[in-house]
Amino acid sequence: MAARNLLVDVHTHVYLPRYASVLRSRATAPRILSRPTPNGQGTEERLVILENEPSGGRPVGPQYWDRDEKLKFMDKHGIDISIVSPFKSDSTANPWLDFLSPAEAPSLASALNNDLEAYCSTSPSLASSLRRLYGFGLLPLLPTVPTNTLLSTITEITSLPHLKGIIMGTRGVGKGLDDDALEPVWEALAKAGLVVFLHPHYGIPSGEWGERDNGHVLPLALGFPFETTIATTRLVLAGVLDRHPTLRLLLAHSGGCLPQLSSRLASCIDHDPAVASRLQHDARWYLGRLYFDAVSYGREELAFVAECVGRADGYDKNTPRVSQARQRTLGSSHLLFGTDHPFFPPLSESEKWRSVTENLDAIDGVEGWGEEERKGVRGGNAARLFGLY
Amino acid sequence: MAARNLLVDVHTHVYLPRYASVLRSRATAPRILSRPTPNGQGTEERLVILENEPSGGRPVGPQYWDRDEKLKFMDKHGIDISIVSPFKSDSTANPWLDFLSPAEAPSLASALNNDLEAYCSTSPSLASSLRRLYGFGLLPLLPTVPTNTLLSTITEITSLPHLKGIIMGTRGVGKGLDDDALEPVWEALAKAGLVVFLHPHYGIPSGEWGERDNGHVLPLALGFPFETTIATTRLVLAGVLDRHPTLRLLLAHSGGCLPQLSSRLASCIDHDPAVASRLQHDARWYLGRLYFDAVSYGREELAFVAECVGRADGYDKNTPRVSQARQRTLGSSHLLFGTDHPFFPPLSESEKWRSVTENLDAIDGVEGWGEEERKGVRGGNAARLFGLY
Repeated sequence: MAARNLLVDVHTHVYLPRYASVLRSRATAPRILSRPTPNGQGTEERLVILENEPSGGRPVGPQYWDRDEKLKFMDKHGIDISIVSPFKSDSTANPWLDFLSPAEAPSLASALNNDLEAYCSTSPSLASSLRRLYGFGLLPLLPTVPTNTLLSTITEITSLPHLKGIIMGTRGVGKGLDDDALEPVWEALAKAGLVVFLHPHYGIPSGEWGERDNGHVLPLALGFPFETTIATTRLVLAGVLDRHPTLRLLLAHSGGCLPQLSSRLASCIDHDPAVASRLQHDARWYLGRLYFDAVSYGREELAFVAECVGRADGYDKNTPRVSQARQRTLGSSHLLFGTDHPFFPPLSESEKWRSVTENLDAIDGVEGWGEEERKGVRGGNAARLFGLY
Repeated sequence: MAARNLLVDVHTHVYLPRYASVLRSRATAPRILSRPTPNGQGTEERLVILENEPSGGRPVGPQYWDRDEKLKFMDKHGIDISIVSPFKSDSTANPWLDFLSPAEAPSLASALNNDLEAYCSTSPSLASSLRRLYGFGLLPLLPTVPTNTLLSTITEITSLPHLKGIIMGTRGVGKGLDDDALEPVWEALAKAGLVVFLHPHYGIPSGEWGERDNGHVLPLALGFPFETTIATTRLVLAGVLDRHPTLRLLLAHSGGCLPQLSSRLASCIDHDPAVASRLQHDARWYLGRLYFDAVSYGREELAFVAECVGRADGYDKNTPRVSQARQRTLGSSHLLFGTDHPFFPPLSESEKWRSVTENLDAIDGVEGWGEEERKGVRGGNAARLFGLY
């Protein structure tokens, strides 16, 4: 069926206009400010994430909040459907909702979830009831926001038919994703069938990057994936996946470095019996429970992540191990195309976005994958995971 | 020739007796203390790395300093040659020389390098002049130790025939490995043909591990590889490999997560033109310049690291890209067996060390490698890199 050939982007960000307005109204970071353009002939907006940010913040513009810009980008690259994540994360610390007070956050989250539903539900149709835009909702995850408020927001999101999951950072309600306070949240998310898109946001302490000016390279290229890796590992070690077998987590940036460290992790756990005894499975088994966006810019990376997913069941004693080649094929079903739009814009005006072309080339390049696996990673796996069609 | 079938361990630690004595003489961490055994029938030694360490420090014993114990371990597992690293690193911060004053460190480094030469040169012979033990020397890398002292130590190490390289942490003389102050050191190491074994030591700030008690799992399984990844990336971004094309670096734990993040790193660099313009090559090219121990506990990890090494030359515009399968074969030449002894001891008395058996099984398990590649990773690559025979 034709729908199986769709290209679906599961990792694409949006600043909803209501959120941009909140940022424009603020006098301290995070904020959006207006300033004269360098040539003095007009004004430009800058997104300031940290006070005293170098170069006065980053350029922001319609590609961040204008739906037509999102659709134009999709058309240019042949993307049929996008599952957008409101707000964005960036290299150091960046606005989600945690700069708000616990009293403001829940109502803003509700308003934004409704905005996002409208953004998606009024987007162009592809076929019958299929739209071009779907979204991840937001929870007001802040310390002191009561669990009941979080659970009500989950109920609200479930009632919004174009929201197919939630985007979540790594801090939970302040103490990370291994916090027992999140137990009812995991339970509700699993029950609601909402996919949790786990996305980094803070990186690691910037002292690790040294004194040399390397722009945003180190926090973006290393800090973000480290953060995702730590959060997912802590969640696994806390037994969340043991207790919530139907919870579905999608990891940004192909899971950071969790795949490459997963056998080391298994070995370290085995040598720390107090930890090992808490878990039901070898650490590598849990990778077969997770989903990974295919935003890693290389065929070797994708192939490897697929092998790590495909080997997972072999760590269950009742399942026979399979060949490495077979692992690569099997594991492809947990990888999902993504672009990270509107970040990493093209280096020249006319150019296609490399974050798109490189991630598509990577899918095409994996040796051992046939048409079936490539179609799955391009869109079929997303359609299944999110129940799109 | 028979020598090509040797099993060589490039990642194995030793506390030289002189160093253990220094630790025993200290009243504050890092130190080795004696205390009554739990049954009250004798005394035991504990290695205390941090004040108020849980369980009063870790057990230490002859496997840390007794050469016979090292040789027994080698015999039990069929290891022909070990290239030992004096001291060890551990999960948080751990004694190398940086607790010493700049006045003490150089002379202790010299004494320890001479101790290590004796430890190796009087070890059993394998054949003609080939011994069972070789070593990595130490530099007194501390802030305020003059460059000339470091260069003299390099000269001394070069004169000790059984020392084939140096072990190095990630802090250099205090500001990391991207510090311009290290330029003469890199130059001297490259000229001397000494391999630099880059080993983590500090992890990342422990606040990232959260409040839950996960033993040593997170700092060991994640913190160590993160540290190596950051240090190597900073070194690459500083142009060290561009300026010192003959410098040979061996990365602990298969390079941490550098392979899995290398395409993302390349993408982030390309989108930060000020950084990109400083470098001569795509970030992935540099992985072909590096060597990786094969201490990653899984065949999929080894295969992937080999592919990342094997694809590196393809990022030079004059070299054609090759198939993924060919990358895996080509790249095997930069992988070298290791055990991380005496860490991760067996879980029962009679058992072989899983850090050995799992890393050997991983080498045997890589699909696409033939006898030639396996022999290389087991020992042939080490023999060539270190000029053993």
